[in-house]
Amino acid sequence: MSTVKLVDEHTDDPKVRVVFEDIKATKKIDRVPNIWRALATHPEHLELCWTRLKAIMASGKVDALTKEIIALAVSATNGCNYCINSHTAAVQRLGLDNEGLGEVLAVVGLFNQMNKLADAYQVEPDILPTPR
Amino acid sequence: MSTVKLVDEHTDDPKVRVVFEDIKATKKIDRVPNIWRALATHPEHLELCWTRLKAIMASGKVDALTKEIIALAVSATNGCNYCINSHTAAVQRLGLDNEGLGEVLAVVGLFNQMNKLADAYQVEPDILPTPR
Amino acid sequence: MSTVKLVDEHTDDPKVRVVFEDIKATKKIDRVPNIWRALATHPEHLELCWTRLKAIMASGKVDALTKEIIALAVSATNGCNYCINSHTAAVQRLGLDNEGLGEVLAVVGLFNQMNKLADAYQVEPDILPTPR
Amino acid sequence: MSTVKLVDEHTDDPKVRVVFEDIKATKKIDRVPNIWRALATHPEHLELCWTRLKAIMASGKVDALTKEIIALAVSATNGCNYCINSHTAAVQRLGLDNEGLGEVLAVVGLFNQMNKLADAYQVEPDILPTPR
Amino acid sequence: MSTVKLVDEHTDDPKVRVVFEDIKATKKIDRVPNIWRALATHPEHLELCWTRLKAIMASGKVDALTKEIIALAVSATNGCNYCINSHTAAVQRLGLDNEGLGEVLAVVGLFNQMNKLADAYQVEPDILPTPR
Amino acid sequence: MSTVKLVDEHTDDPKVRVVFEDIKATKKIDRVPNIWRALATHPEHLELCWTRLKAIMASGKVDALTKEIIALAVSATNGCNYCINSHTAAVQRLGLDNEGLGEVLAVVGLFNQMNKLADAYQVEPDILPTPR
Repeated sequence: MSTVKLVDEHTDDPKVRVVFEDIKATKKIDRVPNIWRALATHPEHLELCWTRLKAIMASGKVDALTKEIIALAVSATNGCNYCINSHTAAVQRLGLDNEGLGEVLAVVGLFNQMNKLADAYQVEPDILPTPR
Repeated sequence: MSTVKLVDEHTDDPKVRVVFEDIKATKKIDRVPNIWRALATHPEHLELCWTRLKAIMASGKVDALTKEIIALAVSATNGCNYCINSHTAAVQRLGLDNEGLGEVLAVVGLFNQMNKLADAYQVEPDILPTPR
Repeated sequence: MSTVKLVDEHTDDPKVRVVFEDIKATKKIDRVPNIWRALATHPEHLELCWTRLKAIMASGKVDALTKEIIALAVSATNGCNYCINSHTAAVQRLGLDNEGLGEVLAVVGLFNQMNKLADAYQVEPDILPTPR
Repeated sequence: MSTVKLVDEHTDDPKVRVVFEDIKATKKIDRVPNIWRALATHPEHLELCWTRLKAIMASGKVDALTKEIIALAVSATNGCNYCINSHTAAVQRLGLDNEGLGEVLAVVGLFNQMNKLADAYQVEPDILPTPR
Repeated sequence: MSTVKLVDEHTDDPKVRVVFEDIKATKKIDRVPNIWRALATHPEHLELCWTRLKAIMASGKVDALTKEIIALAVSATNGCNYCINSHTAAVQRLGLDNEGLGEVLAVVGLFNQMNKLADAYQVEPDILPTPR
Repeated sequence: MSTVKLVDEHTDDPKVRVVFEDIKATKKIDRVPNIWRALATHPEHLELCWTRLKAIMASGKVDALTKEIIALAVSATNGCNYCINSHTAAVQRLGLDNEGLGEVLAVVGLFNQMNKLADAYQVEPDILPTPR
């Protein structure tokens, strides 16, 4: 159970109302997801989080599906159940099937393994990017 | 400094030679990267790691650049310096510029933040995938 | 469900009894929390853990509320459900309301993001403490 | 070495200039720290990060020293060298001496230990906050 | 609930059938555990994971109980509930009692604490292995 | 560089001297390792850490080499350079050669991968320990 009372979707708080409406309009949904209702217990922080997410997740050079794939990869690496569920749903909605999902998670598993091996052997970096 | 002596690129060990040649041929490089030389101190494990990585990183439904982006996202989340360097180099080689890299890392930073907030408020999952 | 049978609060084991009584007296509670009952399956380890926690969490230069805030920040960063719950309860009991909790968790989220960005760009430290 | 060229402190980019000036004015420093110069390779993301950090780190119900202590606790838990250095410097500037620092880090170490033990024994939460 | 439909234990898929039979024969069990049924949604990845695990977990210079202890230590450090449960069951089956389990987890807790303290104080390595 | 001045091995502080002598006697070394000199900036915390580590690392049902292997597994999973170095040195001193080290690290890598896959698919635990 959440540690705070989730703020009512039809709250009177004007700052929160504005954000709730923008979330639903942007994501084309008619409920406000729990995470935003929890963050709404501190309206200024809710606004900071939402405006930031909205800006970053908009399609740019990197498309929407790739951004959701990154979100899922990070969430799986961090073991966050809420986010694993919501971003798996997101990549499904954007067309990724079980085979594609399996490929994505195979890479996630592989690099969690490779990262730890590189650290464990204290390997010195030798493949370096070219700073631009 | 690595905790083991990196195995010589021109080693006599036949099992290791086979893997080293395959790494260079597959990645179209002429040096064997340090991580593989460290893993080579246990030839069977080297072979398991390389064959697995080769299979998983081959293009499939998810293309090569997206797979390298996932690798970078996982490595940044885990703070593995060796892998952050090598996968940043990889995405650069595949055409991602600073703007694209900034977009990718913005998503990585955003979800490291969102994951911890969802855990911190113990939010119950409500956006669920449809199991297929 | 816990992986071991939680030791009965009214156990006969003298070493465990001493610790259980001290926990209840120190924390001014009348039940022994589950974590201590699980640790009690190895009485020497229970004693090491409790004496250590009791010493470290006593007020010093850093006051009790700040120590519980640190505990919550660490637990949220690690995603430990047991500890997120118990330390949120603790900061509430010490007077932190939803606005204060929101501020604390905003900082937790922010630095989980900033940490990963600093690692991702492999930024060299330039703001250094003065070793004393 | 950073994976991107750090943007010059005296850059012509107007968006970046505005942020750099605000960083120096807010933190009362005359250099722009490396992390911001790396983020500046994506000016919109730089602006999002800075405006967010500025808002969250301003004193509120939780004072500035406590916020820097939280930042240090998170950074130590995540093992981020850049941030451990800069936030240790910050708490020093705000008056925390070695004894205070030792108390803070003792709590950080303690709960990294307690979190893993609670997870390891799969202990069910029993100390619950009162959702407000 | 899992994010994919667990593949039926009596599936027609020939690639999956082969792996399922080998899992049951190797582990001397008559059900296929959930993790393998989830991975089976991508048959090639299932095969890669299983063949790798089977090779690595076979007794070698390091015996079976020690390998399961390592698995439990990693899983507790990562907070993975599925794996904490299955590897606690495994070490039990191999003869570790509550006292032994308590000793193992005491070491896990201790080094999660010591790791963060070493990072927090940015201590320079001075106890170095002799690379061989 | 460490964030605090490492306390001199020949310090006058009586509480620290006692611990330093015990460390050298117990580990049969003639230098005090850096981590203990950093912790010594808060003498009570130094004493708590050392007495705890000494008790936990003493041979019990689980032998000394297995305990050092667990320490290395945790340190590699957490990416702590100081501890990876010192515990690799420790397992070497206790007789583990490159082949044994490779086996240990193969298990560490494997379960960092399996943990994330189990979380990523949100697999429900089905292999459960028998609570005793």
